[in-house]
Order: sequence, then structure tokens, then C-alpha cells
Amino acid sequence: MTGLPGWMKRMERNKWTDKTNMSMLTDFYEFTMSKGYLDGGNAVRIAYFDLFFRSIPENGGYAIVAGLEQMIDYLQNLRFTENDISYLESLHIFDRSFLSYLESFRLECDIWAMPEGTPVFPGEPLVKVRGPIAQAQLIETMLLTTINHQSLIATKASRIVRAASGRPVFEFGARRAQGYDAAVLGARAAYIGGVAGTSCTIAGQQFGLPVFGTMAHSWVQLFDSEYESFAEYVRSFPTEAYLLVDTYDVLRSGVPNAIAVAKNILEATGNRLKGIRIDSGDLAYLTKEARRMLDEAGLSDCKITVSNALDEYIIRDLLIQGACIDSFGVGERLITSRAEPVFGGVYKLSGVEKDGVVIPKMKISENIGKVTNPCNKEVIRFYDRETGKALADLVTVAGEEIDETKPYELFDPIQTWKRKTLENFTVRRLLEPIFINGKCVCDRQDIESIRRYCSDQQSTLWDSILRFENPQNYYVDLSEELWGIRNEMLHRHRGKEE
Amino acid sequence: MTGLPGWMKRMERNKWTDKTNMSMLTDFYEFTMSKGYLDGGNAVRIAYFDLFFRSIPENGGYAIVAGLEQMIDYLQNLRFTENDISYLESLHIFDRSFLSYLESFRLECDIWAMPEGTPVFPGEPLVKVRGPIAQAQLIETMLLTTINHQSLIATKASRIVRAASGRPVFEFGARRAQGYDAAVLGARAAYIGGVAGTSCTIAGQQFGLPVFGTMAHSWVQLFDSEYESFAEYVRSFPTEAYLLVDTYDVLRSGVPNAIAVAKNILEATGNRLKGIRIDSGDLAYLTKEARRMLDEAGLSDCKITVSNALDEYIIRDLLIQGACIDSFGVGERLITSRAEPVFGGVYKLSGVEKDGVVIPKMKISENIGKVTNPCNKEVIRFYDRETGKALADLVTVAGEEIDETKPYELFDPIQTWKRKTLENFTVRRLLEPIFINGKCVCDRQDIESIRRYCSDQQSTLWDSILRFENPQNYYVDLSEELWGIRNEMLHRHRGKEE
Repeated sequence: MTGLPGWMKRMERNKWTDKTNMSMLTDFYEFTMSKGYLDGGNAVRIAYFDLFFRSIPENGGYAIVAGLEQMIDYLQNLRFTENDISYLESLHIFDRSFLSYLESFRLECDIWAMPEGTPVFPGEPLVKVRGPIAQAQLIETMLLTTINHQSLIATKASRIVRAASGRPVFEFGARRAQGYDAAVLGARAAYIGGVAGTSCTIAGQQFGLPVFGTMAHSWVQLFDSEYESFAEYVRSFPTEAYLLVDTYDVLRSGVPNAIAVAKNILEATGNRLKGIRIDSGDLAYLTKEARRMLDEAGLSDCKITVSNALDEYIIRDLLIQGACIDSFGVGERLITSRAEPVFGGVYKLSGVEKDGVVIPKMKISENIGKVTNPCNKEVIRFYDRETGKALADLVTVAGEEIDETKPYELFDPIQTWKRKTLENFTVRRLLEPIFINGKCVCDRQDIESIRRYCSDQQSTLWDSILRFENPQNYYVDLSEELWGIRNEMLHRHRGKEE
Repeated sequence: MTGLPGWMKRMERNKWTDKTNMSMLTDFYEFTMSKGYLDGGNAVRIAYFDLFFRSIPENGGYAIVAGLEQMIDYLQNLRFTENDISYLESLHIFDRSFLSYLESFRLECDIWAMPEGTPVFPGEPLVKVRGPIAQAQLIETMLLTTINHQSLIATKASRIVRAASGRPVFEFGARRAQGYDAAVLGARAAYIGGVAGTSCTIAGQQFGLPVFGTMAHSWVQLFDSEYESFAEYVRSFPTEAYLLVDTYDVLRSGVPNAIAVAKNILEATGNRLKGIRIDSGDLAYLTKEARRMLDEAGLSDCKITVSNALDEYIIRDLLIQGACIDSFGVGERLITSRAEPVFGGVYKLSGVEKDGVVIPKMKISENIGKVTNPCNKEVIRFYDRETGKALADLVTVAGEEIDETKPYELFDPIQTWKRKTLENFTVRRLLEPIFINGKCVCDRQDIESIRRYCSDQQSTLWDSILRFENPQNYYVDLSEELWGIRNEMLHRHRGKEE
């Protein structure tokens, strides 16, 4: 833990998710099913579950998986207290033997997961759980809540950050977040997705994220004049002041007063005005005019930051229109992923062991999109050996080997005549072991490494995948073996019906 | 605390929001401004802030305010720990005198709020804060996050519950919630808004909400046949079973197997099948057919519940189409308020005391919608003395009296020639004291009372306000005195500019 600032060493690690025992944050049916498994002698049967999603928010070309650290926190703290047991008992639906089972509950599952910050695609397991079915079932809700939420925000953040073309984006959404975790863990996920920092102080404290913020309109309003309010602020923060210039009138009042304060007060003490912020109006026009006024006053080093209902589309359009903006503050449209506030991860049974052999299981639905992939699976990513670009992902039955020295033929799982041969590639298995027999076996990643990894991995994607609108579909195919098992099960089911 | 179940008496009250000190969950600019206020000798100046919102989600006719209890929890626990101070110190932006100020921080504000569950409208203060500006500023973020989130979900819940026309609605969204608070406090807010219960076990435990849930598809898939899975479940839960009938084929497999289990296993032991759940497909067609099949089998007491991407519009349409549904399970579209996931509450300075007199403050914006209302204000609701219906709300300067024995003339604050005279009314002041000089002065309401109050208050609204689409605007007018002050300030500002 060297390298951590002093305040961070002193705090308990991961205080935020340790705050309350989350073991009871579970859909009630996880308890009733677990009791049912226990009653029928099935609780210890070894089952496999996949956590995966079916479509990318906003029809994007990729998503970013996040939340693994909090998932690990939850799993490590998973136990039921006396109070939890009393509560469940009070419902008069669970008998003593089930309550005893919960009292002595200790996680025994094996769990694999993709590293946080990995670009991910529909249909591939992001997390895989193997364990006694009563256990593997009970953790469903928290795994979904955790991965769904942070993946949603990390994905949105990565889109917004990309639109800003290298200009820093700050996460300013705490006040519009859907609750406290949404603010704090949302800031964490946004950082993984590439934002430069957050306004949410506790997210800085808990996770070491850079924090930013200067003034609100109320500051300006308190004083008898805007000039006086700016003057007072720069006296307190001579080197850090971003003056909010839109309380009255940006170009007739705000910018002139900011310039006056820069000249009269800051320059007298050898300081420069750090920046101005505009939070309303036509940001393309206002920033261009403000830039001209600042430059003419010799303040070309004064930065311009903007906020107000920004997202990737508005940022892209502002930059196309030549807006003079050095950084962006993004609020509700990031912290709630407003345009698409749900990341639809699901958690589905894929197999059950019988005498040590995995019996594949799948959900057959009238809705084709809801049919699941059976088996204990792995996900393999192919990278081009020359360019380092990601070529395709392959979902296989666990244990399948890919020979990197030979061409590999992919085929579309629906239109199987559509084939593509990959050559000169390297492969990487994306699911890594996280828990073995209930013990955490992975190293915690620090947030800076996760963020860097996320950025590096995004650069392995072709531009056509990264496009906001109508991106190309990234290939996620099934291995011949997996496709065969799935197809056979579908046909067997159809046969039974007829 | 009589009447609480045993497990609840034993737990610490409000453990959920006590879990972590939330004092650092604040936008960083609240700290920089507070330091600035302190440096300039302004920290102790008495300021007024209003928390209000500008528009109703989904163009609805009303919103429901919620979150007051968690706001109170936060304010009662508000203090900065040694660790908090060390963290802020580590940023090298705050001097010793500000850190000492935070160390000895004790809330001294007076705070008024509308009771939880009140139908509320744009432009009226939901919460009003009076206190030393450094304090009143510092609490901004948490007040907004808390009230915005829970009001969003309570409002959405009340719409969905109304669409269900008396049929129970259950909140099932934890897995798609934006983090843990979103799941737990979202379930609380949904209950205030009228849902009958939640699947989120910890929300039941923490807040005494009814919890529900039976089985997922994974239960059905585990067994070699659907019949066997149903049989096993009803053996564990003979009186509580809702069988999920859409894993393979609702009408050809699910419903027949449910009927067979009801006949072969339950009736043999004198039990009845409680219900079935359908989670996919055409819910209008499937429920009508399932109802017919159940009735023909003598199971007319077997309930039908449905889930799958429901909201108020789909529920309304299903009922119009004659779907045979007894209750609804609603997930992501409620717990994230998916169609409009942001409740846009803001927190604005409205006045500053000088020598004991309130100097009104307002934000003048180029955007008319962002101009605020100045003064220390109150909100008065007029009710018709005969029908009990809510007639209008009036925002006044604090202390204005309304004579209930005389007609009262309202006027539109923009088109002031539009006038309406109210007669035979009673009035009620909606803002109630919550904190006086930093001490909580209100009684905590239990959740059942809040929920009942919310329902009662909704029934004071005319149908034209309750409509989902294109509702009538409820009158929220300004008193003549407040309008006059506001108008004079606007003209004075305009005069200064020219």
C-alpha cells in the first residue's frame, strides 16, 4: 500500500461498501428458492451461473464493465447476523433448518470475472459463478446491482470522454444521482471510464479520485456586486479560482468583471486567473466571445470550462461549431446515464454438475433474444498480432484451446454460412479467477491502473466500434463445440414439444 | 415505538443511512465557498435557501416529495471526523482556520420542509433553510441528492400504482437500481408512492416494508422437468407459491403443469395454488388464456401476476385490452424512473439578513425559466371547504396571513390579467419546522402513515391534474406582495443594465 496518501492509509480500506452488511440486499425470491433447494436436498448441487447483458446502452458499439471491487467487498463480507435471522424468522415463512443454514453461511463458490475497465459485448459472461446452487442463487441480486450500475456509468463516461477529444471532463452529478451510492460509486465508475475527476468529495476521499469545484451562483448572489464576489473569491483562492460568470450576463458583466479582478487583484500579487465557468446560454457563441475578450485582455492562459446538461452529443456539436472550451463539467446526463439509465445485465443458470459432469442448462424463450447459452464457458479475445487491435471474441466451452499458430475460422451463430478466418493473432482469456472456494484469490487493482487499462483497451477497438451512432457490431461468436451443444438442446426441446 | 415488530426494536434505528458518515458527500465547491465565506467574515451571515424544482418528470401534473427522513438522519449526524479533516488537509487548499471551523462544526440552521408524501408543484420551496451561510451552503448537495432521488421514485410509483386501478403493484427493481441506496431507499420511496411491497429484502428489514418473491427461471431450469420444479416448490411453500410459468411455453407447458401440481399435490393436502407469474410474451393474450384455463380447472382463486418491462402506460393498455391480471411486478422502469431518471431539484439563495432584516436575493438569468423567487417564503395550499379538493397553491412572503372568511383573488404571475377568485376555502401552510437552531423539532412519521397521507393527499387533486398525458397545470401563484418584490428587483436589474 505504499504510495497512498497519509489520510488513505489511516482509513479502513473500502469503508464505503463496508458501511452496512449488504448480505440482506437481495431479492426475496433468492431466499425462498434457497430454502426450496435446501428442503429438496438440492442446496449443495453444484451449479453454474453467467452474468451477461443482451444489448449495449444507447445502441453503442461497446460497454465498459465496472464494479468488481465492490462485488468482491460484498462477497468477502457475506454473512447473516443475528438481526438478519430474527428478521427473516419474523416473516413466518422460513423454518429453523433454513435459518440455521443462513447462520452458518460461508461462501464456497468459485467466481471468475473480467477485469474492471474491459470493453465488453452482449452475450459474453462478464462474471461466472460455480458453486452450491443455494449460494450461487443468493448472491444474484447484489452481483447484478453492482455490475449493472457501475458498468452503466463507466460506459457512459467513456462515450462522453471520447467526445471531448482529449479535453478533461469532470463528473459533477452528485445532486442528481439516484441516491448516495449512485453519487459515490458512480463517480468511481466514471473515473474508470475516463473522467479526470469529480466534484463528489467523499468519492475523492474513499477512492483517491481527484476532486474539483469552485463556486456556485449563490456565492455571486451573496455579494452586492459580481465584481465584489469575484474579488472576494480570488482573495481566498488566488491560484485556484474558476469564476462563474453567468449569474447576471456573461459577456456584459461576468467576463468583464473576471478580467477586472484578474488585472486589479491577481496581477498585483503576481497571480494569474485560472479560469472561468459558463453554466447557461449558447455555449458555442459565449465561449468564443469570452475567449476573444480574455485574449485581448492578455489572459490567454485563462481556461474556459462549461457545464449545463452536457453529454457526448452536445460536446461533439460544440466542438464542431468551434466553441473555445478547455474542459467540461458533466452532471445528470452522466451520473444517471440519463438517455438510457439501465444496464440490463442478467444472471442465468448455465449448467449443473452431476457426478462431476456438467449438464448444460439453457433458458428457452419464445423471445429469441432471451434464449441463453448453456455450459461452463470461457471468453477468448483475439488480437491482431501486428496492430494489437481486437478482432473478435469467442465464447467457448471451458477448456477449449485455441492454437495461435493456425488460422481460426469464426462463424455467425445465426447465419452460419457467414464465416471469417482469423490469422496472425494472439488470444487472451478474459475471465480471471476471483474467488476459489469462497476465498478471494485476486489482487486488488488500484483505481489508476484500472482507468489506464480501460483507456488502453479502448484503443484496441476499431473506430467503427467506437462510433456513437450506428457502430459496427463487434464479433462475438460461439465456438463450434458450444454452438453444437446449444443447437442440439434447442432441437431436443423442439422435438419434445411436437 | 410500540407496534414495531421485535426484530425492528432490536435494531438501531435508521441503520441504513447511519452506515457511513455522509458529511463528506458534498460537492467540493461547497467547501471552497465555505472557506471563502469564512475568510471574508461572511460565514455567519444569515442566509435563506430554497430547495425547489422547475418541471415535473414526464410532463406529469404533480410530483410527490419524499426523502425527508433520510435528510433528517444526515443533518443529525453532520460532523467532520479526524479522517475527514486529514483528507481535506491533504489537498493543500484549505488553511488551519477553515479546518478548525469544520472540526467544531455543529448545525445551527432552521429548516422547514413539506411532509413526505405531499403532492408538490414546480416553483414552490419543498425545503427552506435559514442559517449561517457557510452552513446552509455546505448541506446543499446532500439535501438535493436525498430529495431528488426519493421524490423521483415516489412520483413514478404513484403514477404506476394509479394505472393499476387498485390492483397491487410490487417493486421488483433492485438488480437494475443505480446502486444500493437506489435499491433500498428507492423501495422506500416507491412504498410512499403507493406500491404494496418490494422484493428488496433489506428494505423490508430496515423500513418495515412488506417483502415478496417466490421463484426465478433458474429454479425451473434446475429440475429435469417443469412439473417436477413446481412440485418441489409447492412442497416447500404449500400456501405461498406463485409458480413462474414462462420458462418453456406458458400455455402449452407452464399453466398445465401449474394446474397439475395444484390438483395432484396441493389439493391432496388441502391447499390451494396461490398464483402464477408470467414474465414474457403478450401479457394481454396470455393472461386471458391462462385465466380461462385456471377457471376451467376450478382454480378461479389462483391469482395471476405479471412482470416484464412494465410501467404506467403498458399497465393501462393491458387493462384496457382486458388482460386478466391481479397484480403487477415492476422493475427497472420504476426503480430508475427510466423514462425520466432525473428529478431536477435545485437549491437557490433567496435572501440574506442584514441587521435582522431579510434582503431578498434572486438569480436573474437570460433563461426566463431559471429566474428564481426572492425572499423568506411560505407555501399555502387552498382547499375547497365543500369537496376537500386542492384549489391552488400560493407562494407568499413569510408571515403573510390569508383570511379564510373572505374571497381571495389569485393572479397569474406572468399574465397578470388572468385572475381567479377563490371562495369558501380553508388554507394549510405546507412548510413545517424540521430543525430549529440545528435541533430536530419534528416527530418522525412511520412509513405507513406517510404512505396513507400520500394517498389521501393525491385524492385531493382533480382528475385533470392526475392525468398521465397533457394534465392541467395546477395553479401555483405568487402573493401580490411577493410578486411586487420580484418585479421591482427585475426592473431594478434591467435599469442597471441600460
